[in-house]
Amino acid sequence: MTKTAVICGGVGAARLLSGLVQVVPGRDLAAIVNVGDDVELHGLHVSPDLDTITYTLAGAVSEERGWGLEGETWKAMEMLGRYGGDDWFSLGDQDLGTHLYRTQRLQNGDSLSVVSAAIATAWGLEFSLLPVTNDRLRTVMTTDQHGDIGFQEYFVRHAHDVAATAVRFEGAPTSQPAPGVLDWLENAERIIIAPSNPVVSVDPVLAVPGVRDLLQRRRRQVIAVSPIIGGKALKGPADRLMKELGGTASSAGVASWYQEVAGTLVLDTIDADDAAAVEALGVRPAITDTIMSTVERSSALADFILALPCSEEAAS
Amino acid sequence: MTKTAVICGGVGAARLLSGLVQVVPGRDLAAIVNVGDDVELHGLHVSPDLDTITYTLAGAVSEERGWGLEGETWKAMEMLGRYGGDDWFSLGDQDLGTHLYRTQRLQNGDSLSVVSAAIATAWGLEFSLLPVTNDRLRTVMTTDQHGDIGFQEYFVRHAHDVAATAVRFEGAPTSQPAPGVLDWLENAERIIIAPSNPVVSVDPVLAVPGVRDLLQRRRRQVIAVSPIIGGKALKGPADRLMKELGGTASSAGVASWYQEVAGTLVLDTIDADDAAAVEALGVRPAITDTIMSTVERSSALADFILALPCSEEAAS
Repeated sequence: MTKTAVICGGVGAARLLSGLVQVVPGRDLAAIVNVGDDVELHGLHVSPDLDTITYTLAGAVSEERGWGLEGETWKAMEMLGRYGGDDWFSLGDQDLGTHLYRTQRLQNGDSLSVVSAAIATAWGLEFSLLPVTNDRLRTVMTTDQHGDIGFQEYFVRHAHDVAATAVRFEGAPTSQPAPGVLDWLENAERIIIAPSNPVVSVDPVLAVPGVRDLLQRRRRQVIAVSPIIGGKALKGPADRLMKELGGTASSAGVASWYQEVAGTLVLDTIDADDAAAVEALGVRPAITDTIMSTVERSSALADFILALPCSEEAAS
Repeated sequence: MTKTAVICGGVGAARLLSGLVQVVPGRDLAAIVNVGDDVELHGLHVSPDLDTITYTLAGAVSEERGWGLEGETWKAMEMLGRYGGDDWFSLGDQDLGTHLYRTQRLQNGDSLSVVSAAIATAWGLEFSLLPVTNDRLRTVMTTDQHGDIGFQEYFVRHAHDVAATAVRFEGAPTSQPAPGVLDWLENAERIIIAPSNPVVSVDPVLAVPGVRDLLQRRRRQVIAVSPIIGGKALKGPADRLMKELGGTASSAGVASWYQEVAGTLVLDTIDADDAAAVEALGVRPAITDTIMSTVERSSALADFILALPCSEEAAS
């Protein structure tokens, strides 16, 4: 089997990984995960994208919410609310156990890599789950309404319902890729960019020194999956952010966003009309159903991606 | 009504306060509480004595355990256990809400005084709840078996079942009394030393600069309640620690321990025979029932203490 590395945000990436694990053995699969969403809350280190992937792949995620655990309780948050504490970011009681464990180990000097792997193993995950960096990298949104705010403030507290005028990845320039990240990106037969938010999930991964360069060099092995379907993001503010930050909310807009790093773009059949525009950007379009509403659909998408040619130069 | 200040550890002090609030108006009562038991766990600041008092006085404490909340759930700890995390210190889910709130506010720069008062107010407490200091003060136990360990490691992890050869209060020499502490001790008509552990609950309070001096100067207004009844501590290792650290596990031993700071010692009727020995130490003995198994008994003890003369020189 061919080694496959997947550049990941949260929910969309977790769905794709659910399909990939059906067809790629664990030792040949690595998820390289955004940490720009990480946040320190009440003294705890919370890693939303890593946890969404872990919980989803463990079959423990809340299907209804798409994040957090099924059957979760909220006693700690209710108590926090009693005090008038900051309770805009919901931390479930079981989920808190994960954050307590992570925080303690980080304070003991263990790296986020080591801790994330331990958590993933405890949940039975068999592939490599790698934070893109062990260093502090934080996505900061510039807004007219609230000034510069952390990603989770933007995303959760303000329900991504404010206009962003800029985004930056604090700490990225001086960060180092976590152990294994560049090896996987160098040696994988295929690098998949999951259907995550290009602006705030994938770009922070690319901002870690070495990652973008490596993808540019291996561009023909890089297959991106468009998170924009029919001009809309299935979830989250990808469409809005692309428009606000100088792009276009369409599959062609995604091709343009990833033009330098991806040789192929998988776009939904709904967007078949965008194929010519994608191709015109020098990106090979590959058309299939991309809405992963079931594991079978995720699996079919994984099969489709793994069957794409990627050892030759991108189209014409 | 006369102003009353109470020097407090956890459970025993909470019981006495349950009686005092029946007979002293909130504005005339202050609890000055040990923080040597405080501990940072998994990134959270935990203040066991402050919380035991708050939860007990709010009528929310678990009667069975004597600490933590009634009807508590343990989802976060179960998850922590799944990862093999340090779960020797049980943090209930609701209780975690308190620690999250405290930690966040401390990180925002608020003092432990301000945060403790906010928590106490949220639970409806009407008296002043004051940590003895806002500075970092930590009780450290020296043991042959485990070397120097934090108080909670000694008390909880090792179930106070190891011999201690010394105790010290890290940070105490450079700590400052929290706002209000010296005022209350200066102006209270009565200062009560609650039936808490003299070695590890009361001594850390006395170790904060200014506190011991003030009590020595106002010794005749200071009434200690013996936590040793019939040679035993009702709860915890007070008897064992007093013996290990050069004292005697008896009411007379408590009188000796507090000789310089307390003019009066309340001892249980069971220990009536110790009265002469207490008096021989220059401490006035006051004999009554001290086992606070109900709020009525706590109330009766409070009445007894408040009726004691304390404006004249200690007995002959």
